[in-house]
Amino acid sequence: MFLTLLDLAGGFAFALSGGTRAVERRFDLFGIVFLAFVAATAGGIVRDVLIGAVPPAAIASWPSAAVAVLAGLVASRARGLIARLATPVTVFDAVGLGFFAVVGTRKALDAGLTPVMAALLGMLTAIGGGIGRDVLTAEPPMVLRREIYALAALLGGAVVVLGDAVGWSNGLSATVGAVAATGLRLTALRFGWNLPRG
Amino acid sequence: MFLTLLDLAGGFAFALSGGTRAVERRFDLFGIVFLAFVAATAGGIVRDVLIGAVPPAAIASWPSAAVAVLAGLVASRARGLIARLATPVTVFDAVGLGFFAVVGTRKALDAGLTPVMAALLGMLTAIGGGIGRDVLTAEPPMVLRREIYALAALLGGAVVVLGDAVGWSNGLSATVGAVAATGLRLTALRFGWNLPRG
Amino acid sequence: MFLTLLDLAGGFAFALSGGTRAVERRFDLFGIVFLAFVAATAGGIVRDVLIGAVPPAAIASWPSAAVAVLAGLVASRARGLIARLATPVTVFDAVGLGFFAVVGTRKALDAGLTPVMAALLGMLTAIGGGIGRDVLTAEPPMVLRREIYALAALLGGAVVVLGDAVGWSNGLSATVGAVAATGLRLTALRFGWNLPRG
Repeated sequence: MFLTLLDLAGGFAFALSGGTRAVERRFDLFGIVFLAFVAATAGGIVRDVLIGAVPPAAIASWPSAAVAVLAGLVASRARGLIARLATPVTVFDAVGLGFFAVVGTRKALDAGLTPVMAALLGMLTAIGGGIGRDVLTAEPPMVLRREIYALAALLGGAVVVLGDAVGWSNGLSATVGAVAATGLRLTALRFGWNLPRG
Repeated sequence: MFLTLLDLAGGFAFALSGGTRAVERRFDLFGIVFLAFVAATAGGIVRDVLIGAVPPAAIASWPSAAVAVLAGLVASRARGLIARLATPVTVFDAVGLGFFAVVGTRKALDAGLTPVMAALLGMLTAIGGGIGRDVLTAEPPMVLRREIYALAALLGGAVVVLGDAVGWSNGLSATVGAVAATGLRLTALRFGWNLPRG
Repeated sequence: MFLTLLDLAGGFAFALSGGTRAVERRFDLFGIVFLAFVAATAGGIVRDVLIGAVPPAAIASWPSAAVAVLAGLVASRARGLIARLATPVTVFDAVGLGFFAVVGTRKALDAGLTPVMAALLGMLTAIGGGIGRDVLTAEPPMVLRREIYALAALLGGAVVVLGDAVGWSNGLSATVGAVAATGLRLTALRFGWNLPRG
Protein backbone atom coordinates (compact mmCIF):
# COMPACT_ATOMS: atom_id res chain seq x y z
CA MET A 1 0.00 0.00 0.00
CA PHE A 2 2.76 2.41 1.01
CA LEU A 3 4.77 1.25 -2.02
CA THR A 4 1.82 1.82 -4.35
CA LEU A 5 1.45 5.33 -2.97
CA LEU A 6 5.16 6.02 -3.51
CA ASP A 7 4.89 4.64 -7.03
CA LEU A 8 1.90 6.85 -7.82
CA ALA A 9 3.48 9.92 -6.21
CA GLY A 10 6.65 9.43 -8.25
CA GLY A 11 4.66 8.79 -11.41
CA PHE A 12 2.56 11.87 -10.73
CA ALA A 13 5.68 14.03 -10.40
CA PHE A 14 7.07 12.61 -13.65
CA ALA A 15 3.70 13.19 -15.34
CA LEU A 16 3.62 16.79 -14.10
CA SER A 17 6.98 17.39 -15.78
CA GLY A 18 5.53 16.14 -19.04
CA GLY A 19 2.29 18.07 -18.73
CA THR A 20 4.08 21.27 -17.79
CA ARG A 21 6.45 20.95 -20.75
CA ALA A 22 3.47 20.39 -23.07
CA VAL A 23 1.76 23.52 -21.74
CA GLU A 24 4.96 25.52 -22.32
CA ARG A 25 5.13 24.23 -25.90
CA ARG A 26 1.49 25.17 -26.54
CA PHE A 27 0.29 21.60 -27.05
CA ASP A 28 -3.46 21.10 -26.93
CA LEU A 29 -5.27 19.33 -24.12
CA PHE A 30 -4.77 15.91 -25.69
CA GLY A 31 -1.07 16.59 -26.16
CA ILE A 32 -0.74 17.70 -22.54
CA VAL A 33 -2.26 14.49 -21.21
CA PHE A 34 -0.33 12.36 -23.73
CA LEU A 35 3.01 13.92 -22.79
CA ALA A 36 2.18 13.50 -19.10
CA PHE A 37 1.54 9.80 -19.76
CA VAL A 38 4.78 9.40 -21.73
CA ALA A 39 6.86 11.13 -19.05
CA ALA A 40 5.37 8.89 -16.36
CA THR A 41 5.46 5.57 -18.17
CA ALA A 42 7.91 5.45 -21.09
CA GLY A 43 10.78 4.16 -18.97
CA GLY A 44 8.77 1.30 -17.53
CA ILE A 45 7.20 0.48 -20.90
CA VAL A 46 10.59 0.26 -22.62
CA ARG A 47 11.94 -1.88 -19.77
CA ASP A 48 8.98 -4.25 -19.95
CA VAL A 49 9.29 -4.56 -23.74
CA LEU A 50 13.02 -5.27 -23.44
CA ILE A 51 12.52 -8.05 -20.87
CA GLY A 52 9.51 -9.49 -22.67
CA ALA A 53 6.93 -8.56 -20.01
CA VAL A 54 4.12 -7.61 -22.40
CA PRO A 55 1.71 -5.99 -22.27
CA PRO A 56 3.69 -3.55 -20.09
CA ALA A 57 2.20 -2.80 -16.70
CA ALA A 58 1.38 0.80 -17.67
CA ILE A 59 -0.67 -0.49 -20.62
CA ALA A 60 -2.23 -3.51 -18.93
CA SER A 61 -4.00 -1.56 -16.21
CA TRP A 62 -5.43 1.90 -15.76
CA PRO A 63 -3.77 3.58 -12.71
CA SER A 64 -0.84 5.01 -14.68
CA ALA A 65 -3.17 6.40 -17.31
CA ALA A 66 -5.43 7.88 -14.62
CA VAL A 67 -2.46 9.54 -12.91
CA ALA A 68 -1.35 10.97 -16.26
CA VAL A 69 -4.80 12.39 -17.00
CA LEU A 70 -4.92 13.96 -13.55
CA ALA A 71 -1.41 15.40 -13.86
CA GLY A 72 -2.19 16.71 -17.33
CA LEU A 73 -5.30 18.50 -16.07
CA VAL A 74 -3.38 19.94 -13.13
CA ALA A 75 -0.60 21.11 -15.46
CA SER A 76 -3.06 22.76 -17.82
CA ARG A 77 -5.33 24.36 -15.20
CA ALA A 78 -2.96 25.22 -12.39
CA ARG A 79 0.31 26.51 -13.76
CA GLY A 80 0.54 29.04 -10.98
CA LEU A 81 0.09 26.31 -8.40
CA ILE A 82 2.86 24.22 -9.95
CA ALA A 83 5.18 27.20 -9.99
CA ARG A 84 4.52 27.77 -6.29
CA LEU A 85 4.94 24.04 -5.61
CA ALA A 86 8.24 23.81 -7.50
CA THR A 87 10.10 22.41 -4.53
CA PRO A 88 7.57 19.68 -3.64
CA VAL A 89 7.40 18.63 -7.29
CA THR A 90 11.19 18.42 -7.44
CA VAL A 91 11.22 16.29 -4.30
CA PHE A 92 8.51 13.97 -5.63
CA ASP A 93 10.45 13.70 -8.89
CA ALA A 94 13.54 12.64 -6.95
CA VAL A 95 11.43 10.14 -5.01
CA GLY A 96 10.06 8.78 -8.27
CA LEU A 97 13.59 8.53 -9.63
CA GLY A 98 14.74 6.38 -6.71
CA PHE A 99 11.60 4.28 -6.66
CA PHE A 100 11.58 3.62 -10.39
CA ALA A 101 15.29 2.74 -10.35
CA VAL A 102 15.00 0.07 -7.65
CA VAL A 103 11.74 -1.37 -8.96
CA GLY A 104 13.13 -1.49 -12.49
CA THR A 105 16.32 -3.18 -11.33
CA ARG A 106 14.36 -5.80 -9.37
CA LYS A 107 12.08 -6.55 -12.35
CA ALA A 108 15.12 -6.94 -14.61
CA LEU A 109 16.79 -9.28 -12.12
CA ASP A 110 13.60 -11.35 -11.86
CA ALA A 111 13.59 -11.58 -15.68
CA GLY A 112 17.03 -13.20 -15.52
CA LEU A 113 19.28 -10.30 -16.49
CA THR A 114 22.80 -10.12 -15.13
CA PRO A 115 23.35 -7.72 -12.19
CA VAL A 116 25.21 -5.09 -14.23
CA MET A 117 22.64 -4.98 -17.00
CA ALA A 118 19.78 -5.08 -14.47
CA ALA A 119 21.12 -1.96 -12.75
CA LEU A 120 21.42 -0.27 -16.15
CA LEU A 121 17.85 -1.26 -17.00
CA GLY A 122 16.69 0.09 -13.63
CA MET A 123 18.37 3.36 -14.52
CA LEU A 124 16.63 3.32 -17.92
CA THR A 125 13.30 2.80 -16.15
CA ALA A 126 13.93 5.98 -14.20
CA ILE A 127 15.21 8.17 -17.05
CA GLY A 128 13.20 6.82 -20.00
CA GLY A 129 10.14 8.95 -19.36
CA GLY A 130 12.14 12.17 -19.40
CA ILE A 131 13.88 11.11 -22.60
CA GLY A 132 10.52 10.36 -24.24
CA ARG A 133 9.17 13.74 -23.10
CA ASP A 134 12.17 15.55 -24.59
CA VAL A 135 12.12 13.61 -27.88
CA LEU A 136 8.44 14.47 -28.33
CA THR A 137 9.23 18.14 -27.92
CA ALA A 138 12.18 17.81 -30.31
CA GLU A 139 14.85 18.63 -27.74
CA PRO A 140 18.08 16.81 -26.87
CA PRO A 141 17.23 14.99 -23.63
CA MET A 142 18.02 16.99 -20.51
CA VAL A 143 19.30 13.89 -18.71
CA LEU A 144 22.08 13.53 -21.30
CA ARG A 145 23.22 17.10 -20.94
CA ARG A 146 23.50 18.14 -17.33
CA GLU A 147 22.82 17.58 -13.64
CA ILE A 148 23.27 14.37 -11.65
CA TYR A 149 20.16 12.41 -12.57
CA ALA A 150 20.92 9.15 -14.38
CA LEU A 151 23.88 8.57 -12.09
CA ALA A 152 21.62 8.82 -9.05
CA ALA A 153 19.30 6.23 -10.61
CA LEU A 154 22.28 4.00 -11.37
CA LEU A 155 23.37 4.25 -7.74
CA GLY A 156 19.93 3.02 -6.67
CA GLY A 157 20.16 0.07 -9.05
CA ALA A 158 23.71 -0.71 -7.93
CA VAL A 159 22.62 -0.84 -4.29
CA VAL A 160 19.93 -3.36 -5.21
CA VAL A 161 22.31 -5.72 -7.01
CA LEU A 162 25.01 -5.32 -4.35
CA GLY A 163 22.41 -5.90 -1.65
CA ASP A 164 21.54 -9.19 -3.33
CA ALA A 165 25.22 -10.09 -3.45
CA VAL A 166 25.71 -9.60 0.27
CA GLY A 167 22.44 -11.29 1.20
CA TRP A 168 20.21 -8.34 2.11
CA SER A 169 16.47 -8.91 1.87
CA ASN A 170 14.70 -7.45 -1.16
CA GLY A 171 12.95 -4.93 1.04
CA LEU A 172 16.14 -3.71 2.66
CA SER A 173 18.11 -3.32 -0.58
CA ALA A 174 15.14 -1.60 -2.24
CA THR A 175 14.79 0.85 0.64
CA VAL A 176 18.49 1.65 0.88
CA GLY A 177 18.74 1.89 -2.94
CA ALA A 178 15.79 4.24 -3.28
CA VAL A 179 16.95 6.43 -0.42
CA ALA A 180 20.48 6.56 -1.84
CA ALA A 181 19.25 7.50 -5.32
CA THR A 182 16.79 10.11 -4.08
CA GLY A 183 19.35 11.45 -1.62
CA LEU A 184 22.09 11.80 -4.23
CA ARG A 185 19.66 13.51 -6.62
CA LEU A 186 18.50 16.02 -4.02
CA THR A 187 22.04 16.68 -2.76
CA ALA A 188 23.26 17.25 -6.32
CA LEU A 189 20.40 19.66 -6.94
CA ARG A 190 21.08 21.47 -3.67
CA PHE A 191 24.74 22.04 -4.51
CA GLY A 192 24.37 22.40 -8.26
CA TRP A 193 26.58 19.42 -9.05
CA ASN A 194 27.12 18.45 -12.68
CA LEU A 195 29.13 15.79 -14.45
CA PRO A 196 32.07 16.98 -16.55
CA ARG A 197 31.33 17.82 -20.15
CA GLY A 198 33.74 15.09 -21.22
CA MET B 1 -11.49 -8.09 -49.48
CA PHE B 2 -13.26 -4.77 -48.96
CA LEU B 3 -11.57 -4.48 -45.56
CA THR B 4 -8.16 -5.16 -47.06
CA LEU B 5 -8.77 -2.44 -49.63
CA LEU B 6 -9.80 0.01 -46.89
CA ASP B 7 -6.72 -0.93 -44.92
CA LEU B 8 -4.43 -0.37 -47.90
CA ALA B 9 -6.16 2.88 -48.87
CA GLY B 10 -5.78 4.21 -45.34
CA GLY B 11 -2.17 3.03 -45.17
CA PHE B 12 -1.49 4.63 -48.54
CA ALA B 13 -2.85 7.98 -47.34
CA PHE B 14 -0.73 7.78 -44.18
CA ALA B 15 2.31 6.83 -46.30
CA LEU B 16 1.70 9.78 -48.62
CA SER B 17 1.81 12.12 -45.61
CA GLY B 18 5.21 10.67 -44.70
CA GLY B 19 6.56 10.75 -48.24
CA THR B 20 5.37 14.31 -48.81
CA ARG B 21 6.95 15.50 -45.57
CA ALA B 22 10.23 13.83 -46.55
CA VAL B 23 10.19 15.57 -49.94
CA GLU B 24 9.57 18.91 -48.22
CA ARG B 25 12.53 18.28 -45.90
CA ARG B 26 14.78 17.41 -48.86
CA PHE B 27 15.31 13.78 -47.80
CA ASP B 28 16.77 11.53 -50.48
CA LEU B 29 14.79 8.79 -52.23
CA PHE B 30 15.56 6.24 -49.53
CA GLY B 31 14.48 8.68 -46.83
CA ILE B 32 11.24 9.40 -48.69
CA VAL B 33 10.30 5.72 -48.89
CA PHE B 34 11.44 5.10 -45.30
CA LEU B 35 9.36 7.96 -43.91
CA ALA B 36 6.36 6.79 -45.94
CA PHE B 37 6.76 3.33 -44.37
CA VAL B 38 7.07 4.77 -40.87
CA ALA B 39 4.00 6.98 -41.28
CA ALA B 40 1.95 4.02 -42.53
CA THR B 41 3.12 1.38 -40.06
CA ALA B 42 4.66 2.78 -36.86
CA GLY B 43 1.35 2.82 -34.98
CA GLY B 44 0.57 -0.80 -35.77
CA ILE B 45 4.15 -1.90 -35.10
CA VAL B 46 4.21 -0.27 -31.66
CA ARG B 47 0.79 -1.79 -30.84
CA ASP B 48 1.95 -5.26 -31.90
CA VAL B 49 5.15 -4.96 -29.85
CA LEU B 50 3.18 -3.80 -26.80
CA ILE B 51 0.75 -6.73 -26.97
CA GLY B 52 3.49 -9.26 -27.80
CA ALA B 53 2.33 -9.98 -31.36
CA VAL B 54 5.80 -10.24 -32.91
CA PRO B 55 6.94 -10.02 -35.59
CA PRO B 56 4.44 -7.19 -36.20
CA ALA B 57 2.15 -7.64 -39.19
CA ALA B 58 3.83 -4.79 -41.10
CA ILE B 59 7.19 -6.58 -40.75
CA ALA B 60 5.97 -10.13 -41.23
CA SER B 61 4.54 -9.59 -44.70
CA TRP B 62 5.20 -7.32 -47.64
CA PRO B 63 1.97 -5.40 -48.50
CA SER B 64 2.64 -2.53 -46.10
CA ALA B 65 6.18 -2.16 -47.40
CA ALA B 66 4.94 -2.26 -51.00
CA VAL B 67 2.33 0.42 -50.29
CA ALA B 68 5.02 2.56 -48.67
CA VAL B 69 7.36 2.22 -51.65
CA LEU B 70 4.53 3.12 -54.01
CA ALA B 71 3.47 6.12 -51.88
CA GLY B 72 7.07 7.26 -51.61
CA LEU B 73 7.52 7.17 -55.37
CA VAL B 74 4.23 9.03 -55.89
CA ALA B 75 5.28 11.64 -53.32
CA SER B 76 8.66 12.13 -54.96
CA ARG B 77 7.49 12.13 -58.60
CA ALA B 78 4.08 13.70 -58.45
CA ARG B 79 4.03 16.55 -55.98
CA GLY B 80 1.76 18.55 -58.24
CA LEU B 81 -0.71 15.67 -58.39
CA ILE B 82 -0.76 15.37 -54.59
CA ALA B 83 -1.36 19.11 -54.26
CA ARG B 84 -4.33 18.85 -56.64
CA LEU B 85 -5.57 15.75 -54.81
CA ALA B 86 -5.32 17.36 -51.36
CA THR B 87 -8.97 16.71 -50.55
CA PRO B 88 -9.02 13.03 -51.55
CA VAL B 89 -5.82 12.44 -49.60
CA THR B 90 -7.34 14.11 -46.55
CA VAL B 91 -10.43 11.93 -46.86
CA PHE B 92 -8.36 8.75 -47.22
CA ASP B 93 -6.32 9.82 -44.20
CA ALA B 94 -9.53 10.18 -42.17
CA VAL B 95 -10.67 6.78 -43.44
CA GLY B 96 -7.32 5.30 -42.40
CA LEU B 97 -7.66 6.94 -39.00
CA GLY B 98 -11.03 5.32 -38.36
CA PHE B 99 -10.00 1.96 -39.78
CA PHE B 100 -6.71 1.79 -37.85
CA ALA B 101 -8.47 2.81 -34.61
CA VAL B 102 -11.11 0.06 -34.73
CA VAL B 103 -8.70 -2.63 -35.96
CA GLY B 104 -6.16 -1.66 -33.31
CA THR B 105 -8.79 -1.72 -30.57
CA ARG B 106 -10.03 -5.16 -31.65
CA LYS B 107 -6.48 -6.58 -31.74
CA ALA B 108 -5.82 -5.20 -28.26
CA LEU B 109 -9.07 -6.71 -26.93
CA ASP B 110 -8.17 -10.07 -28.50
CA ALA B 111 -4.80 -9.85 -26.73
CA GLY B 112 -6.62 -9.61 -23.41
CA LEU B 113 -6.36 -5.90 -22.65
CA THR B 114 -9.07 -4.20 -20.65
CA PRO B 115 -11.64 -2.18 -22.65
CA VAL B 116 -10.31 1.24 -21.63
CA MET B 117 -6.68 0.40 -22.42
CA ALA B 118 -7.73 -1.34 -25.65
CA ALA B 119 -9.44 1.82 -26.88
CA LEU B 120 -6.32 3.82 -25.98
CA LEU B 121 -4.15 1.32 -27.86
CA GLY B 122 -6.49 1.56 -30.84
CA MET B 123 -5.99 5.30 -30.75
CA LEU B 124 -2.21 4.81 -30.57
CA THR B 125 -2.43 2.55 -33.63
CA ALA B 126 -4.04 5.40 -35.52
CA ILE B 127 -1.78 8.23 -34.36
CA GLY B 128 1.55 6.39 -33.97
CA GLY B 129 2.58 6.71 -37.61
CA GLY B 130 2.17 10.47 -37.60
CA ILE B 131 4.14 10.74 -34.37
CA GLY B 132 6.95 8.64 -35.87
CA ARG B 133 6.95 10.81 -39.00
CA ASP B 134 7.21 14.00 -36.93
CA VAL B 135 9.93 12.65 -34.61
CA LEU B 136 12.04 11.66 -37.63
CA THR B 137 11.79 15.20 -38.97
CA ALA B 138 12.62 16.59 -35.51
CA GLU B 139 9.27 18.32 -34.99
CA PRO B 140 6.88 18.20 -32.04
CA PRO B 141 4.12 15.84 -33.23
CA MET B 142 1.25 17.63 -34.95
CA VAL B 143 -1.31 15.36 -33.27
CA LEU B 144 -0.24 16.67 -29.86
CA ARG B 145 -0.59 20.29 -30.86
CA ARG B 146 -3.82 20.93 -32.71
CA GLU B 147 -6.90 19.69 -34.56
CA ILE B 148 -9.27 16.91 -33.54
CA TYR B 149 -7.36 13.82 -34.57
CA ALA B 150 -6.50 11.54 -31.65
CA LEU B 151 -9.88 12.23 -30.10
CA ALA B 152 -11.61 11.02 -33.27
CA ALA B 153 -9.54 7.82 -33.11
CA LEU B 154 -10.42 7.40 -29.46
CA LEU B 155 -14.11 7.76 -30.32
CA GLY B 156 -13.73 4.90 -32.80
CA GLY B 157 -12.09 2.71 -30.20
CA ALA B 158 -14.70 3.63 -27.60
CA VAL B 159 -17.50 2.59 -29.95
CA VAL B 160 -15.84 -0.81 -30.40
CA VAL B 161 -15.57 -1.51 -26.67
CA LEU B 162 -19.04 -0.14 -25.97
CA GLY B 163 -20.42 -2.21 -28.85
CA ASP B 164 -18.97 -5.30 -27.20
CA ALA B 165 -20.54 -4.30 -23.91
CA VAL B 166 -24.03 -4.04 -25.40
CA GLY B 167 -23.67 -7.19 -27.48
CA TRP B 168 -23.12 -5.81 -30.99
CA SER B 169 -21.37 -8.08 -33.47
CA ASN B 170 -17.72 -7.33 -34.20
CA GLY B 171 -18.61 -6.22 -37.70
CA LEU B 172 -21.30 -3.81 -36.55
CA SER B 173 -19.20 -2.18 -33.84
CA ALA B 174 -16.21 -1.91 -36.19
CA THR B 175 -18.33 -0.29 -38.88
CA VAL B 176 -20.03 2.17 -36.54
CA GLY B 177 -16.72 2.93 -34.81
CA ALA B 178 -14.83 3.58 -38.02
CA VAL B 179 -17.61 5.73 -39.44
CA ALA B 180 -17.84 7.70 -36.19
CA ALA B 181 -14.09 8.32 -36.07
CA THR B 182 -13.81 9.26 -39.73
CA GLY B 183 -16.93 11.39 -39.49
CA LEU B 184 -15.73 13.30 -36.44
CA ARG B 185 -12.35 13.86 -38.07
CA LEU B 186 -13.86 15.20 -41.29
CA THR B 187 -16.41 17.35 -39.46
CA ALA B 188 -13.69 18.83 -37.25
CA LEU B 189 -11.61 19.61 -40.32
CA ARG B 190 -14.59 21.14 -42.09
CA PHE B 191 -15.34 23.50 -39.22
CA GLY B 192 -11.78 24.05 -38.04
CA TRP B 193 -12.39 22.61 -34.58
CA ASN B 194 -9.51 22.45 -32.13
CA LEU B 195 -9.11 21.29 -28.57
CA PRO B 196 -8.36 23.99 -25.97
CA ARG B 197 -4.69 24.75 -25.36
CA GLY B 198 -5.08 23.64 -21.77
CA MET C 1 36.69 -15.21 -32.76
CA PHE C 2 37.39 -13.23 -35.92
CA LEU C 3 33.68 -12.53 -36.25
CA THR C 4 33.45 -11.31 -32.68
CA LEU C 5 36.34 -8.96 -33.32
CA LEU C 6 34.66 -7.63 -36.48
CA ASP C 7 31.43 -7.18 -34.52
CA LEU C 8 33.19 -5.27 -31.75
CA ALA C 9 35.22 -3.17 -34.20
CA GLY C 10 32.05 -2.23 -36.08
CA GLY C 11 30.20 -1.53 -32.86
CA PHE C 12 33.11 0.55 -31.62
CA ALA C 13 33.06 2.67 -34.79
CA PHE C 14 29.30 3.18 -34.45
CA ALA C 15 29.75 4.05 -30.76
CA LEU C 16 32.47 6.58 -31.63
CA SER C 17 30.03 8.32 -33.98
CA GLY C 18 27.57 8.60 -31.09
CA GLY C 19 30.15 9.72 -28.56
CA THR C 20 31.62 12.29 -30.92
CA ARG C 21 28.20 13.72 -31.70
CA ALA C 22 27.45 13.98 -27.99
CA VAL C 23 30.71 15.84 -27.37
CA GLU C 24 29.86 18.25 -30.20
CA ARG C 25 26.44 18.88 -28.65
CA ARG C 26 27.98 19.54 -25.23
CA PHE C 27 26.37 16.53 -23.55
CA ASP C 28 27.84 15.57 -20.18
CA LEU C 29 29.91 12.44 -19.60
CA PHE C 30 26.84 10.30 -18.99
CA GLY C 31 25.21 11.59 -22.17
CA ILE C 32 28.37 10.85 -24.15
CA VAL C 33 28.47 7.23 -23.02
CA PHE C 34 24.70 6.84 -23.42
CA LEU C 35 24.73 8.17 -26.98
CA ALA C 36 27.68 5.93 -27.81
CA PHE C 37 25.67 2.94 -26.54
CA VAL C 38 22.58 3.96 -28.52
CA ALA C 39 24.57 4.44 -31.74
CA ALA C 40 26.18 1.02 -31.35
CA THR C 41 23.14 -0.99 -30.27
CA ALA C 42 19.80 0.63 -31.16
CA GLY C 43 19.55 -1.14 -34.52
CA GLY C 44 20.13 -4.57 -33.03
CA ILE C 45 17.86 -3.88 -30.08
CA VAL C 46 14.97 -2.81 -32.32
CA ARG C 47 15.52 -5.87 -34.54
CA ASP C 48 15.51 -8.21 -31.55
CA VAL C 49 12.35 -6.62 -30.14
CA LEU C 50 10.62 -6.91 -33.53
CA ILE C 51 11.45 -10.61 -33.89
CA GLY C 52 10.70 -11.40 -30.25
CA ALA C 53 14.28 -12.19 -29.22
CA VAL C 54 14.13 -10.57 -25.78
CA PRO C 55 16.06 -9.53 -23.85
CA PRO C 56 18.04 -8.21 -26.85
CA ALA C 57 21.64 -9.37 -27.09
CA ALA C 58 22.98 -5.88 -26.33
CA ILE C 59 20.99 -5.85 -23.06
CA ALA C 60 21.51 -9.49 -22.07
CA SER C 61 25.30 -9.32 -21.90
CA TRP C 62 27.92 -6.70 -21.20
CA PRO C 63 30.34 -6.50 -24.19
CA SER C 64 28.25 -3.94 -26.12
CA ALA C 65 27.94 -1.77 -23.02
CA ALA C 66 31.67 -2.06 -22.35
CA VAL C 67 32.50 -1.07 -25.93
CA ALA C 68 30.17 1.92 -25.60
CA VAL C 69 31.77 3.08 -22.36
CA LEU C 70 35.20 2.76 -23.93
CA ALA C 71 34.16 4.62 -27.09
CA GLY C 72 32.49 7.32 -25.02
CA LEU C 73 35.65 7.85 -22.99
CA VAL C 74 37.76 7.96 -26.15
CA ALA C 75 35.35 10.45 -27.73
CA SER C 76 35.42 12.69 -24.67
CA ARG C 77 39.17 12.52 -23.97
CA ALA C 78 40.71 12.23 -27.41
CA ARG C 79 38.88 14.42 -29.87
CA GLY C 80 42.15 15.30 -31.57
CA LEU C 81 42.96 11.63 -31.99
CA ILE C 82 39.57 10.91 -33.55
CA ALA C 83 39.99 13.83 -35.95
CA ARG C 84 43.36 12.45 -37.04
CA LEU C 85 41.90 8.95 -37.31
CA ALA C 86 38.91 10.08 -39.39
CA THR C 87 39.68 7.67 -42.21
CA PRO C 88 40.12 4.55 -40.05
CA VAL C 89 36.91 5.39 -38.19
CA THR C 90 35.07 5.75 -41.48
CA VAL C 91 36.42 2.40 -42.66
CA PHE C 92 35.43 0.69 -39.40
CA ASP C 93 32.00 2.27 -39.68
CA ALA C 94 31.61 0.81 -43.17
CA VAL C 95 32.80 -2.57 -41.85
CA GLY C 96 30.24 -2.35 -39.06
CA LEU C 97 27.56 -1.48 -41.60
CA GLY C 98 28.25 -4.59 -43.66
CA PHE C 99 28.64 -6.84 -40.65
CA PHE C 100 25.48 -5.62 -38.91
CA ALA C 101 23.48 -5.94 -42.15
CA VAL C 102 24.37 -9.58 -42.78
CA VAL C 103 24.09 -10.63 -39.13
CA GLY C 104 20.74 -8.85 -38.83
CA THR C 105 19.43 -10.47 -41.99
CA ARG C 106 20.49 -13.93 -40.81
CA LYS C 107 18.87 -13.45 -37.41
CA ALA C 108 15.64 -12.31 -39.08
CA LEU C 109 15.68 -15.35 -41.41
CA ASP C 110 16.27 -17.65 -38.44
CA ALA C 111 13.25 -16.03 -36.74
CA GLY C 112 11.11 -17.07 -39.70
CA LEU C 113 10.78 -13.79 -41.59
CA THR C 114 10.38 -13.85 -45.36
CA PRO C 115 13.53 -13.11 -47.40
CA VAL C 116 12.47 -9.62 -48.47
CA MET C 117 11.50 -8.52 -44.97
CA ALA C 118 14.62 -10.17 -43.51
CA ALA C 119 16.86 -8.12 -45.80
CA LEU C 120 14.96 -4.98 -44.76
CA LEU C 121 15.38 -5.89 -41.10
CA GLY C 122 19.09 -6.48 -41.70
CA MET C 123 19.26 -3.00 -43.15
CA LEU C 124 17.41 -1.62 -40.10
CA THR C 125 19.96 -3.36 -37.85
CA ALA C 126 22.71 -1.45 -39.62
CA ILE C 127 21.05 1.97 -39.76
CA GLY C 128 19.01 1.95 -36.52
CA GLY C 129 21.86 3.12 -34.31
CA GLY C 130 22.51 6.18 -36.42
CA ILE C 131 18.80 7.01 -36.45
CA GLY C 132 18.66 6.72 -32.66
CA ARG C 133 21.74 8.94 -32.33
CA ASP C 134 20.19 11.60 -34.56
CA VAL C 135 16.76 11.50 -32.87
CA LEU C 136 18.43 12.00 -29.47
CA THR C 137 20.19 15.09 -30.76
CA ALA C 138 16.91 16.32 -32.32
CA GLU C 139 18.12 16.14 -35.93
CA PRO C 140 16.49 14.56 -38.97
CA PRO C 141 18.46 11.31 -39.43
CA MET C 142 21.46 11.66 -41.72
CA VAL C 143 20.77 8.27 -43.30
CA LEU C 144 17.44 9.56 -44.63
CA ARG C 145 18.94 12.64 -46.20
CA ARG C 146 22.08 11.83 -48.15
CA GLU C 147 24.91 9.49 -49.08
CA ILE C 148 24.67 5.79 -49.99
CA TYR C 149 24.36 4.15 -46.60
CA ALA C 150 21.07 2.28 -46.13
CA LEU C 151 21.25 1.06 -49.72
CA ALA C 152 24.66 -0.48 -49.05
CA ALA C 153 23.23 -2.26 -46.02
CA LEU C 154 20.29 -3.45 -48.10
CA LEU C 155 22.70 -4.84 -50.69
CA GLY C 156 24.40 -6.86 -47.97
CA GLY C 157 21.08 -8.25 -46.80
CA ALA C 158 20.00 -9.01 -50.36
CA VAL C 159 23.18 -11.00 -50.97
CA VAL C 160 22.43 -13.10 -47.88
CA VAL C 161 18.91 -13.99 -48.97
CA LEU C 162 19.94 -14.56 -52.59
CA GLY C 163 22.85 -16.71 -51.39
CA ASP C 164 20.35 -18.86 -49.51
CA ALA C 165 18.22 -19.11 -52.63
CA VAL C 166 21.09 -20.42 -54.77
CA GLY C 167 22.40 -22.76 -52.09
CA TRP C 168 25.47 -20.91 -50.79
CA SER C 169 26.64 -21.74 -47.29
CA ASN C 170 25.81 -19.25 -44.54
CA GLY C 171 29.47 -18.34 -44.24
CA LEU C 172 29.89 -17.65 -47.93
CA SER C 173 26.77 -15.52 -48.30
CA ALA C 174 27.62 -13.59 -45.12
CA THR C 175 31.14 -12.91 -46.34
CA VAL C 176 30.11 -11.85 -49.82
CA GLY C 177 27.23 -9.78 -48.42
CA ALA C 178 29.35 -7.95 -45.88
CA VAL C 179 32.10 -7.28 -48.42
CA ALA C 180 29.55 -6.03 -50.94
CA ALA C 181 27.90 -3.70 -48.44
CA THR C 182 31.17 -2.35 -47.07
CA GLY C 183 32.57 -2.02 -50.58
CA LEU C 184 29.57 -0.14 -51.91
CA ARG C 185 29.63 2.18 -48.89
CA LEU C 186 33.33 2.96 -49.28
CA THR C 187 33.08 3.38 -53.04
CA ALA C 188 30.12 5.75 -52.65
CA LEU C 189 32.06 7.77 -50.09
CA ARG C 190 35.14 7.86 -52.33
CA PHE C 191 33.20 9.22 -55.29
CA GLY C 192 30.66 11.30 -53.36
CA TRP C 193 27.65 9.34 -54.64
CA ASN C 194 24.19 10.33 -53.44
CA LEU C 195 20.69 9.12 -54.16
CA PRO C 196 18.39 11.54 -56.01
CA ARG C 197 16.37 13.90 -53.86
CA GLY C 198 13.20 12.33 -55.20
